[in-house]
Amino acid sequence: MSAEHHTSAAPALTPVTVLGLGNMGTALAAAFLERGHPTTVWNRSHEKTKALAERGARVAATPEEAVTAAELVIACVLDNDALHTVLDPVADRLADRTLVNVTSGSPEQAREFTTWADGHGVAYLDGAIMTTPLGVGHPDMMFLYSGSEAAFTAHKQALEVLGEPLYLGTDSGAASLYDAALLGLMWSTFTGWLHGTALVGADGGAATDFTALANRWLSGAVGGFLTRYSGQVDEGRYPGDDATVDVQIATIDHLIHAAADRGVDNALPELLKATMEQAKALGHGGDSYASVIEVLRGRGGAKAAR
Amino acid sequence: MSAEHHTSAAPALTPVTVLGLGNMGTALAAAFLERGHPTTVWNRSHEKTKALAERGARVAATPEEAVTAAELVIACVLDNDALHTVLDPVADRLADRTLVNVTSGSPEQAREFTTWADGHGVAYLDGAIMTTPLGVGHPDMMFLYSGSEAAFTAHKQALEVLGEPLYLGTDSGAASLYDAALLGLMWSTFTGWLHGTALVGADGGAATDFTALANRWLSGAVGGFLTRYSGQVDEGRYPGDDATVDVQIATIDHLIHAAADRGVDNALPELLKATMEQAKALGHGGDSYASVIEVLRGRGGAKAAR
Ligand SMILES: NC(=O)c1ccc[n+]([C@@H]2O[C@H](COP(=O)([O-])OP(=O)(O)OC[C@H]3O[C@@H](n4cnc5c(N)ncnc54)[C@H](OP(=O)(O)O)[C@@H]3O)[C@@H](O)[C@H]2O)c1
Ligand SMILES: NC(=O)c1ccc[n+]([C@@H]2O[C@H](COP(=O)([O-])OP(=O)(O)OC[C@H]3O[C@@H](n4cnc5c(N)ncnc54)[C@H](OP(=O)(O)O)[C@@H]3O)[C@@H](O)[C@H]2O)c1
Repeated sequence: MSAEHHTSAAPALTPVTVLGLGNMGTALAAAFLERGHPTTVWNRSHEKTKALAERGARVAATPEEAVTAAELVIACVLDNDALHTVLDPVADRLADRTLVNVTSGSPEQAREFTTWADGHGVAYLDGAIMTTPLGVGHPDMMFLYSGSEAAFTAHKQALEVLGEPLYLGTDSGAASLYDAALLGLMWSTFTGWLHGTALVGADGGAATDFTALANRWLSGAVGGFLTRYSGQVDEGRYPGDDATVDVQIATIDHLIHAAADRGVDNALPELLKATMEQAKALGHGGDSYASVIEVLRGRGGAKAAR
Repeated sequence: MSAEHHTSAAPALTPVTVLGLGNMGTALAAAFLERGHPTTVWNRSHEKTKALAERGARVAATPEEAVTAAELVIACVLDNDALHTVLDPVADRLADRTLVNVTSGSPEQAREFTTWADGHGVAYLDGAIMTTPLGVGHPDMMFLYSGSEAAFTAHKQALEVLGEPLYLGTDSGAASLYDAALLGLMWSTFTGWLHGTALVGADGGAATDFTALANRWLSGAVGGFLTRYSGQVDEGRYPGDDATVDVQIATIDHLIHAAADRGVDNALPELLKATMEQAKALGHGGDSYASVIEVLRGRGGAKAAR
């Protein structure tokens, strides 16, 4: 009786299926197993299921068996074409289930998959994983989702196993678009950081010492600027009351000269300077750096105005 | 008696002189006044002294009067040439005092000023202010210093009034070099962020929404990568066990396509991709992004090896 009581009181953990056991799919399935979710796995090449089976996963022999094993189906394969290859033959067996597709792709592919899912009575949530397999399961890592709000609400708790689930709205393309935008920010930051590391390193400074300051700088002063400037972008006004584009143009020459003196490649700062000069040419010399978005929008500005 | 006792028990606040009352010099002097330091100010154009005089500053009529008024002299003028114009005629009156030069300049200028100061018996500390006038006085803002360690130790407490003083070593050029490197990181981050903001904005996403995630991304996952990769740079080994240059090259095409579809300028991501491809050409396709430093070092790699 008391064992039975205990069983009914503990909330049953949602059974999940994970399709695709590459580096990332394996990490997703492992996180669900670790937290006690009944977990079914499938992979095109059978051998990748073995380690997970030893940790308690149920192994499905076919995609059909996999998608019928759980109401929540998470797909993580190479790309969306591969996912269609796997799911098209079993689309009808997915009816009334939820498909969460964390395979990387474009916003257009996410929207196409939404139409496909609608046609088969499947609730569809597109996702983007903002970490590597090592970060899966850490609550401060961001997992972006967009598409069916009902599916997100129903499965938010299960998705919390993987990281922090953030819902970006009903346009299923949003997660992929944010993914691309955040990765672009990452590569820019990486490359600017490496340029600074090379510069400081040329005079004997250690990368670890510079990086401790770089991280404080990014999360402190730079983050404060981004927050302030984001409001300016949304308002379409860029008051230059802290630092103007003109001042930044004058200052970047110090960087370019110091780097040139030390044989550090200046392609990135030269491009940044040219971009600032385009903003100045558009009349933004006295405005804040946020005004540089007018250059980047390029033809997009015209498109948005249509 | 008790008043006398009180006076001797309260630590006397170091008297300071601030030379140059532009936007930044005015903020520095105001911070010292706010915290009760006896503060003497001087500016080429007299009218900028008035507001500070009303707040309790002593106004020096000449540079000579200014530099003799306090043992700690802080200089913040347009550039180092301007500072020589001010100080060369009164160099002998600076003997046995400390000059903290937070005027922006190159590492070479800082080293030249050190030689000048040594020749006149002046303790010299070069500085770089990693905030705008609005951020002066906030303890989380970084003020970088390099040069005389004795001067830094003696005046660290007074310098804490301005922000957090960080000492980078006896090479007086270090503060300027770190300044350039951190500003380069800032411009790269700004521009990558604006590119992402333009991308998300093309589909109707608000800059403020994107930026909330961008800041979490920078201070969380991206900061973690920088810390890990800085160790790889110092070791000169770049194991690609999280994400390889090859994977980043494949992924950046998603960003470039999504941006092109939306009319967003792709000069920055195209440059980032070309840089990654140079790293691949050097044999780093299977290595982590940290290996991109081998491209940026360019001729500097050869220089460092000399
Ligand atoms: N790794 C990361 O850090 C990371 C981060 C964020 C997002 N992602 C995304 O997560 C997804 C998976 O990445 P991963 O790192 O796990 O890649 P991976 O290790 O290369 O694994 C690829 C997976 O896709 C499967 N697959 C490939 N072509 C297939 C096909 N035609 N039919 C069925 N299955 C096929 C593979 O099956 P086989 O084992 O049979 O080859 C394997 O399970 C990608 O979209 C990636 O962009 C990865
Ligand atoms: N503002 C910032 O956000 C910021 C941030 C970090 C670092 N900095 C650095 O701080 C320094 C000052 O910047 P700021 O914003 O205060 O500039 P600013 O408002 O333009 O003020 C320039 C100051 O330099 C003086 N000056 C110019 N030429 C001179 C000369 N030949 N002889 C004597 N004095 C001369 C000016 O005196 P007059 O009043 O007589 O013209 C004024 O006091 C610069 O090196 C700047 O790069 C500024």
